[in-house]
Amino acid sequence: MPVKSKEDLSLAYTPGVARPCEIIAQDGSKARELTIKGNSVAIVSDGSAVLGLGNIGSLASIPVMEGKALLFQEFAGVNAWPICLDTQDTEEIIETIRRIAPVFGGINLEDISAPRCFEIENRLQDLGIPVFHDDQHGTAIVLLAGLLNAAKVTSRSTADLRVVVNGAGAAGTAISRLLRCAGHTANTCVSVKDVIVCDSKGAIHRDRDDLNEYKRGLLQFTNSENRKGTLQDVLAGADAFVGVSKGNLISREDIATMNPDSIVLAMANPIPEIMPDEARAGGAAVVGTGRSDFPNQVNNLLAFPGIFRGALDANATRVTDSMKIAAAQRLAELIPSPSADRILPDPLDRTVAPCIAEAVCRAWYETGEA
Amino acid sequence: MPVKSKEDLSLAYTPGVARPCEIIAQDGSKARELTIKGNSVAIVSDGSAVLGLGNIGSLASIPVMEGKALLFQEFAGVNAWPICLDTQDTEEIIETIRRIAPVFGGINLEDISAPRCFEIENRLQDLGIPVFHDDQHGTAIVLLAGLLNAAKVTSRSTADLRVVVNGAGAAGTAISRLLRCAGHTANTCVSVKDVIVCDSKGAIHRDRDDLNEYKRGLLQFTNSENRKGTLQDVLAGADAFVGVSKGNLISREDIATMNPDSIVLAMANPIPEIMPDEARAGGAAVVGTGRSDFPNQVNNLLAFPGIFRGALDANATRVTDSMKIAAAQRLAELIPSPSADRILPDPLDRTVAPCIAEAVCRAWYETGEA
Repeated sequence: MPVKSKEDLSLAYTPGVARPCEIIAQDGSKARELTIKGNSVAIVSDGSAVLGLGNIGSLASIPVMEGKALLFQEFAGVNAWPICLDTQDTEEIIETIRRIAPVFGGINLEDISAPRCFEIENRLQDLGIPVFHDDQHGTAIVLLAGLLNAAKVTSRSTADLRVVVNGAGAAGTAISRLLRCAGHTANTCVSVKDVIVCDSKGAIHRDRDDLNEYKRGLLQFTNSENRKGTLQDVLAGADAFVGVSKGNLISREDIATMNPDSIVLAMANPIPEIMPDEARAGGAAVVGTGRSDFPNQVNNLLAFPGIFRGALDANATRVTDSMKIAAAQRLAELIPSPSADRILPDPLDRTVAPCIAEAVCRAWYETGEA
Repeated sequence: MPVKSKEDLSLAYTPGVARPCEIIAQDGSKARELTIKGNSVAIVSDGSAVLGLGNIGSLASIPVMEGKALLFQEFAGVNAWPICLDTQDTEEIIETIRRIAPVFGGINLEDISAPRCFEIENRLQDLGIPVFHDDQHGTAIVLLAGLLNAAKVTSRSTADLRVVVNGAGAAGTAISRLLRCAGHTANTCVSVKDVIVCDSKGAIHRDRDDLNEYKRGLLQFTNSENRKGTLQDVLAGADAFVGVSKGNLISREDIATMNPDSIVLAMANPIPEIMPDEARAGGAAVVGTGRSDFPNQVNNLLAFPGIFRGALDANATRVTDSMKIAAAQRLAELIPSPSADRILPDPLDRTVAPCIAEAVCRAWYETGEA
């Protein structure tokens, strides 16, 4: 609002501002409607895992967080503010987020390295506002949407998909978790047939003794046959490859060992795990990457603005799995007739975020968590 | 900036955003020019002393902080963001501000109760960005400007002024400190003749045994004659009354005991320590209040936008006393011919902040602290 007159000033500042203060002092829940809280998100990073640059620290992470703030505003009208923390200590990060929470309606965790990101997010789920690690769930939601449409294009049923996820960090873990419930409807939850997660040492299986608690936790719902071996070993016979790891890791020969008409979503940036032409030469029917210069860009810009818009509109206190799956399903449905070169909307499509927001808001109410 | 094309997107987000990240990772000082840091201020409160409402907590303090953010943007083009802390513990506040500092170019402390506000501000002076408690210094700067012009109107020399300050909280303390150097020029510092500070128990003097360390500290440069007694007792023979306390505390009879043509700046809000007509009836020549419906509004909006604009433009690491005094003197000079009803500019005057900014920026360089 402009401040041109004495009246404007006394409304924005003293004495007029005392009135909303008094109302909120009586009833804290009014803060959402009477202040910026209801439309504000903190983008919190410790700069420990920034893009492909790694642990460059909080100061150097600011450009990413402010770029993200711009996209929040542009695509969902959300006021987001970067908070780049001068600490990488898990306890201090959790503590600081709790202390700065009052003015925010949501917390977007960003570029915090695994496995700390899991603990930080988990322990903040009681904060009363959504705490959402975009590198995990934003990526997982868009990936799932892409996978649902890729399955459609290759005439597969979701429940029959054998998926290999390469990368057991933030994104790989969240993807594997979300695939448990890929076909979720109101009351049922349909998992893909199996997921095998690989880290740099190959398949994550029950007999490995070098797994941290998070990787071990994945075994509760992955690798049901306890397959062992390298990424290449477990890729044989798989329907879909999901890469959230490093560039140039697999070859056309590896793809050729997968089931026919395979799905390859190779999201390492800027160099994918396998280049699209190589993947197709190996027999892949649908190929997606993280890049804008190839078809099927898996870009979490398709998710996070709408997720937060929906969560804020719903006054949601968390982003539940139901909301994530509703977002992924809605995102997939935005392409009514997917094709090999079009399994996801254009990241710049302005109609996406409002649709996701609506689906997320509805999921919050429908699952009775509101 | 708008995000309309793939090129916009790859500049604002990956991969383009990696370039500034890398530059800042090499040289942290580049963050100021390459990110929002150079133009961002956190307005930090713990909600412990909000307006006249007292300790209403962080959530209820949000309206004040967001109103202030609006004024920062409107009057000085500064991007300010409210940070309302869910703690009132001094150590935790200090710690949290240190942790969130990377993305900010300055910290405006607001509505934090005395004496904690003194320790918090003092201990954060090594943060590398200005940490400025507006309730202290913003008020003190505008008050000093008003007092300088009131002295001019009543043909007094600053060095001859006997001042009684009623209120030994954040504002009263800062005012008393600033008056030590009211007539500061490049190399000299001219104090007013004497300041006597009163708290709710009367004059603060050397023989009181109920003073905290901050009130005791004031005695190093106040009450040189060690006068005792009530506010009324010490008001007798004073030239100026400065009220930062409570409404309706003094009468026209009290004013009549002051020196002729006295100066009364009664800033309690919304009810001044004495109403202007009463003060004039008691013999006051110049009367100011905190209210917009009387002449001579002492409003810290006249200071804080320009102070931060200047400090940010100068890349200053602190707001020094020289900068505060330069701001006060410049503010006074903006009224070339002050009169009894016009000792300060209109708070809505848009030319004020740029002038203050220039004076503050210059003071940072001239005093060799840059």
